[in-house]
Amino acid sequence: MAMKEVLEDLRKIVGDGRVSTSMLERYCYSQDASCVRGMPDFVVRPENAEQISEILRLCNKKGIPATPRGAGSGLAGGAVPVKGGIVLDMSGMNHIIEIDIGNLQVIVEPGVVQERLNQALKPLGFFFPPDPGSSAFCTLGGMISCNSSGMRSVKYGTTRAYVLDLEVVLADGSVIHTGSKVLKSSAGYDITRLFTGAEGTLGIITAAGLKVVPLPQARRLVAASFEDAEAAGRAVVDVFSRGITPSACEIMDKTTLEVLRRCNPAVALPESGDLVLFEVDGTNLSVDEAAREVGEACAPVASSVRIAQSQEEMDSIWAGRRLVGAAVSRLDPTKTRVYAGEDVGVPIREIPSLINKVQKISEDLGIAAMKYGHIGDGNLHVALFIDLMNREEWERLDLAADRIHRAALELGGTVSSEHGIGLARAGYMPAQAGAALEVMRSIKSSLDPKGILNPGKLGL
Amino acid sequence: MAMKEVLEDLRKIVGDGRVSTSMLERYCYSQDASCVRGMPDFVVRPENAEQISEILRLCNKKGIPATPRGAGSGLAGGAVPVKGGIVLDMSGMNHIIEIDIGNLQVIVEPGVVQERLNQALKPLGFFFPPDPGSSAFCTLGGMISCNSSGMRSVKYGTTRAYVLDLEVVLADGSVIHTGSKVLKSSAGYDITRLFTGAEGTLGIITAAGLKVVPLPQARRLVAASFEDAEAAGRAVVDVFSRGITPSACEIMDKTTLEVLRRCNPAVALPESGDLVLFEVDGTNLSVDEAAREVGEACAPVASSVRIAQSQEEMDSIWAGRRLVGAAVSRLDPTKTRVYAGEDVGVPIREIPSLINKVQKISEDLGIAAMKYGHIGDGNLHVALFIDLMNREEWERLDLAADRIHRAALELGGTVSSEHGIGLARAGYMPAQAGAALEVMRSIKSSLDPKGILNPGKLGL
Repeated sequence: MAMKEVLEDLRKIVGDGRVSTSMLERYCYSQDASCVRGMPDFVVRPENAEQISEILRLCNKKGIPATPRGAGSGLAGGAVPVKGGIVLDMSGMNHIIEIDIGNLQVIVEPGVVQERLNQALKPLGFFFPPDPGSSAFCTLGGMISCNSSGMRSVKYGTTRAYVLDLEVVLADGSVIHTGSKVLKSSAGYDITRLFTGAEGTLGIITAAGLKVVPLPQARRLVAASFEDAEAAGRAVVDVFSRGITPSACEIMDKTTLEVLRRCNPAVALPESGDLVLFEVDGTNLSVDEAAREVGEACAPVASSVRIAQSQEEMDSIWAGRRLVGAAVSRLDPTKTRVYAGEDVGVPIREIPSLINKVQKISEDLGIAAMKYGHIGDGNLHVALFIDLMNREEWERLDLAADRIHRAALELGGTVSSEHGIGLARAGYMPAQAGAALEVMRSIKSSLDPKGILNPGKLGL
Repeated sequence: MAMKEVLEDLRKIVGDGRVSTSMLERYCYSQDASCVRGMPDFVVRPENAEQISEILRLCNKKGIPATPRGAGSGLAGGAVPVKGGIVLDMSGMNHIIEIDIGNLQVIVEPGVVQERLNQALKPLGFFFPPDPGSSAFCTLGGMISCNSSGMRSVKYGTTRAYVLDLEVVLADGSVIHTGSKVLKSSAGYDITRLFTGAEGTLGIITAAGLKVVPLPQARRLVAASFEDAEAAGRAVVDVFSRGITPSACEIMDKTTLEVLRRCNPAVALPESGDLVLFEVDGTNLSVDEAAREVGEACAPVASSVRIAQSQEEMDSIWAGRRLVGAAVSRLDPTKTRVYAGEDVGVPIREIPSLINKVQKISEDLGIAAMKYGHIGDGNLHVALFIDLMNREEWERLDLAADRIHRAALELGGTVSSEHGIGLARAGYMPAQAGAALEVMRSIKSSLDPKGILNPGKLGL
C-alpha cells in the first residue's frame, strides 16, 4: 500500500490533526488490556459517521484493514490492529445524543463511557444495567461490540438485551440503521443482535439506541459461606427455585478470600469456606422479604449466613468484592496477574466441577489461581499469577489457560462469557462453535468480502 | 420438477405414511391464520433432524422450495408455501427432550406447544415466559421463528431472550448448533438470535434449548380508566419512572370496552374511557407495595383506579380481557374480523398518537376498528371488521390496513411487533428496514444461495 497516498487521503477526510503515523502514537494503539499486540500504520480519530464512511470506502478500495477501538480496555485483543492498517479511535465520538425517558431509551455515540451514561441517568431515576468491572472507563461501543456484562447480568441480562438500534457503517461505506425506537419488533432478521458482539468485524458502530430501566428503590445483600463449591451451587439453585432472581450472585473461592484478607485484614468477609454474595433489588418491602428467603434457602447447606442490615454493611462487603482486582498483587509480591483463561463459563450446575478442575490445573502446573465470578450465570473468572520476567512461568501459564479453556468446553461451556474472543481466544472457535463457525464465515464474507474490518479476529 | 421422482425420494427418506400429495391434505396446508394462500406440492411429516437434512439436500439439488410449519397459527403467512414445493409439518416433532431445572433450562423439539411446556414446568415452580394469545396451540418452533411474545413481554422480553441454543438444518443439509447450555456467552456472532425470528428462511429448527425462570409467588392487578389515550400514556410512563416494571400493561380503547359489554353485560370492567390493566408480579409483600405505587401513579390522571383485592376479582378482569377475541363477533353480526394491520408497534410515547390515527383511518374508511394491546412495549393490536362477502369492503379493509402500517412507520414504529412479516407484510420491508434490507438479503443468499428455504417471505 502506498502509505503516503493513504495518509493524504485520510487527512482530506478527517483533517490534519486527526490522523497520525508517529511511532509513539502507533505504539500506544498497538495493545489493549490483553497480551495481544499489533502495530497500526495509521491512528485516526474520526468525528462522525460520514468520515468513517469515507474511510471505509478508501479501505475497501485499497484493501487496508480498519480496526475500531473504544477505551482499549478489552481483554482479548479485539481492538488491537493485528494486521496493521488503520486503527479508528472512537473515544472522541462521545456525545449522549438524546435521553428520551418517555420512550425508556437513550441515543449515544459509541465513545460514551458506561459510567458517564449512568451518571446522566441517575437524577432521572433510570439506569443502563450492563455493568462490566471496567464501567468507569469502558465505552458503550466496546460493550456493544463484545456483548459485555457483569455482576448484574444474572437478573438484567447482557448488553444485547438493551440494544434497540445501531447506526453502522458497513465495509463498503454504506450506513444502515438496524432497528428503531420501538421496544419490540418482529420484522426481519435480527441484525441488531448480529452487530452486537461482532467485535467490529462486520461494521463500525457510530450510534446506538439503548433501552434503559428504572433504578430499583432498594437493595439488600446476603453473604453466605459454604464448605465447598458444591454446597454453594446447591444453594444458588434453591434460591432460583423459590422464585427469587438475585440482582447479583457472586462466588469467591477460598484462595480469593485469603488474598483479600492479606490485602486488607479488616475486610468485612467471613473467615472460611467459599463465599457467595446474593444481592436482591426491588421495592422497599420486597427486598427484605427476598433477602429473608435467600437466607432460608442457604441455611440448610451454608456454614454461615449473614443478611446485611444497613447500607454501610452492604457497602463494606461490596468494597471487599471490588478489592479482588487490586488484591491479586498481594498474593505474592513477585507475581503479576496475567489475563488468560480469565472469562470461561459453564452451565450453572457445572460451576463446582469447573472450580475443582481449575484448582487441579493450578496445582498440577504450580500456577496460583484465584477463582471468583458470576455463579448465577455460570461465569467464572480465573486470575492466574506469574513472574512476568520468567519465560518458563509464561509457558506454564499458557498451558494453564489452555487447560482452563478446554475444561470449560468439556463441561459444555464457553471460552468467553463476557470479554469476547478477539485474537486471544480465536484458536478455540472451531471447538466452541463447531459447524456454526462456517455460518459465521459465510456472513463475514458476504458483508465484508475483502476482509478489511478488524481482520484476524474471532477465528474467522 | 419431476414430481414422481421427488415423491419417490421423499418416501425413501421419511417412509410412505409421512408424505402426501393428496389434494385434500395439500389444501389443508395451503393456509395459516392469515389471508395468505399457497398450495404445497408435497406435505411431509418429518420425525427428526436426519430426515430433514436429507430432505433439504434433495431440495437444494433440485431447487425445490421447503417451508416449515408449526401449528399454522401464524398471522402473516409465514408457514404458507407460497412458491409450492414441500411443506414440512413440524408438529409431530413434539417431545420435551429434557427439563434441566438445575441449569434453568429445557430442551424441546420444535413441535411442542407452548402451554404443554408450561404445564410440565408448573409443578417445578418454573415457566417459559413468552405468552402469545395462541399459547394453547402455537408451537415453540413457530414462536422462535417469529420471535413471538405477548402481554408479559413488557417485563419478561420476547422469545429471543430465552433461546440458548438451536439445532438447525441448513439449506445444504448440514446440521449446526448455534449455542450451548451456558446462560451467557460472548463467543462470535450471535447466530442464535439470527435464526430466531428468521421465519424459517435461513434453516429449519429441529431442537431448541430454552431458558426458563421461576414462577412469581404472587400477582396483583390494577385497573385504571382514563378520559383518553394521552392520559393513559402519561400514567404508564409515570409507573415506569417509579421503578415499577409491570408484568403486563394492557390498554383497551372505548370501542373495545363497548364491544366487550355487548358480548357480556356482566363483564367486570369500568363503564367509560380507555382502560389500562397493570399487572405486577413478585414476592407476596412486594406485589401489594407495587400495586399501591401503580395506583398512586395513575390517580392524578385517571378517572377511576381499582386495585383487585382477590384472585377472583383478578380472574374476572382478565376474563374480560381474554373475551376480546370472542367479543369481536358481537360488534356487528354481519361482520367478521380480518387479520390485517393487526400488529403494529411504535415508541411507547407515540401510542396515543397511533390510537388517534387508527381511529381516524377507521372513521374515514367506514371500517370499524377495535384497538387494544401492549401499551407497555408500544404494541397496538387493531381488529378490523368487514362483511367477508362484500368485495368493496375488502378493498376498504386493504386500504385501512395499509394506512395503519404506514401510520406506524411514520411514528418511527414497526409493521410487526410480535406476529412476523411472512408474506402479508413483506411489501413494507423496504420502508421498514431501509438500507438494512440489503444486509438481510446478503445473509440470505450466503446461507441459502438457491433460495429453497421458505421463499417469497420477508421481502427478501
